[in-house]
Amino acid sequence: MKINVLFTYVSADDLSFTGRTSVVIDVLRASSTIVNALQNDAKEIIPVSTVEFAVKVSGGMFSGQTLLGGERNTKKVEGFALGNSPLEYLQELIAGKTIILYTTNGSKAIVKAKFSQTLLICSFLNISAIANYLVELNEDFEIVCSGKGSVFSMEDTVCAGKLISEIMKIHDDIELSDSARASLALNKNFGKNILKMLKETEHGKLLIENGFEEDLKFCSKLNYSNVVPYFSGNVIKALQVNKSIPV
Amino acid sequence: MKINVLFTYVSADDLSFTGRTSVVIDVLRASSTIVNALQNDAKEIIPVSTVEFAVKVSGGMFSGQTLLGGERNTKKVEGFALGNSPLEYLQELIAGKTIILYTTNGSKAIVKAKFSQTLLICSFLNISAIANYLVELNEDFEIVCSGKGSVFSMEDTVCAGKLISEIMKIHDDIELSDSARASLALNKNFGKNILKMLKETEHGKLLIENGFEEDLKFCSKLNYSNVVPYFSGNVIKALQVNKSIPV
Repeated sequence: MKINVLFTYVSADDLSFTGRTSVVIDVLRASSTIVNALQNDAKEIIPVSTVEFAVKVSGGMFSGQTLLGGERNTKKVEGFALGNSPLEYLQELIAGKTIILYTTNGSKAIVKAKFSQTLLICSFLNISAIANYLVELNEDFEIVCSGKGSVFSMEDTVCAGKLISEIMKIHDDIELSDSARASLALNKNFGKNILKMLKETEHGKLLIENGFEEDLKFCSKLNYSNVVPYFSGNVIKALQVNKSIPV
Repeated sequence: MKINVLFTYVSADDLSFTGRTSVVIDVLRASSTIVNALQNDAKEIIPVSTVEFAVKVSGGMFSGQTLLGGERNTKKVEGFALGNSPLEYLQELIAGKTIILYTTNGSKAIVKAKFSQTLLICSFLNISAIANYLVELNEDFEIVCSGKGSVFSMEDTVCAGKLISEIMKIHDDIELSDSARASLALNKNFGKNILKMLKETEHGKLLIENGFEEDLKFCSKLNYSNVVPYFSGNVIKALQVNKSIPV
């Protein structure tokens, strides 16, 4: 099983994902938010790469069943029902709902990788579930760190390294690219205390400055959920326990 | 002093370098070749981003004083006098000569960063010289790893981490970005035995397959040279010992 890590999605070509298995990570906060939304019984999440498209998509939906969520530079987009804090995605607000999600990087990274044959969303919250699924799938895959535009993010890479580390515990015959080996080493260096690591990253500091310290605590919860978010037909759903592709 | 590392140059905008201090690294092999060429008394090196431009530039030069050097995908470009192996750049061949250098990534990374106020070229061969120069300069700077297109290269990042580590030995008050902290950690993990690290990288393996194992040995020589290659007016020259900008 060959594993590669992209530290940012920006320079990748959309078509390069065609037919591949990809795992998108945006620890702070899109992938953590997606995991928590599905954990709290959201029907599905539609990631979009522009605010305009988010509004357009929501316009065609039945009112009451659709919520607009997301942020631009850590702040909730004006007129949206929800921001990008995973803690906002409470069961009583979102159960059974379709969420249209726009974020500065994470939703764009997912849309970029849309031609993947299999496209999963990972955060610290659901690492073991994703690791188990990938080992069962037993195919080469690429981890796409959302980063910050074209800029490297420590937290996404440490999460990528921890995912690889989990897989190596339960699967032999792994072949790592340079970036995958680097991610593994960075998890070894910085991944022992996830909350401490998050607080020391550029993005973590920015979130704390903006009053989102509780989000960092939530996003650091290792294996809080067994949800495997799966992107297919432009929507993200939770794979069923039997791990079949959602219809 | 703020330090940032770009793991690839591809997604950076040319103009983003305007006025900055930048250090380009392409351990295998462009930056090692440039250091060795200047160590062996080449007059100057003109990095170019296309083969066509290399040929065009050389056409306007006096014959005998100019050499075309470089590679495409590890192989010497047809019709060029020299490849991209630092070991080819012998004093008897290149002393006093202008070298026009085209390589798959390194020369392109340098051209990309051309608007920098100060632009230096670093490899393991001249890390201490570059560290000393940067500490004397005492300005924020960005290390540009050439990588492989948009793909991360372990060797460039470990070299970046070692440069940062050298600077931290002789300068306090350093502020590191996420990518700079990651580079420092990767140097700690992989930088103790440089030759071993080079042999285990994707690019190192490719060079060994193509018969360039001796290049890896040469490129691993820590502080083999005191040369500080400085890009100005589209050419790279060695800074004089007094570190003034070359005329």
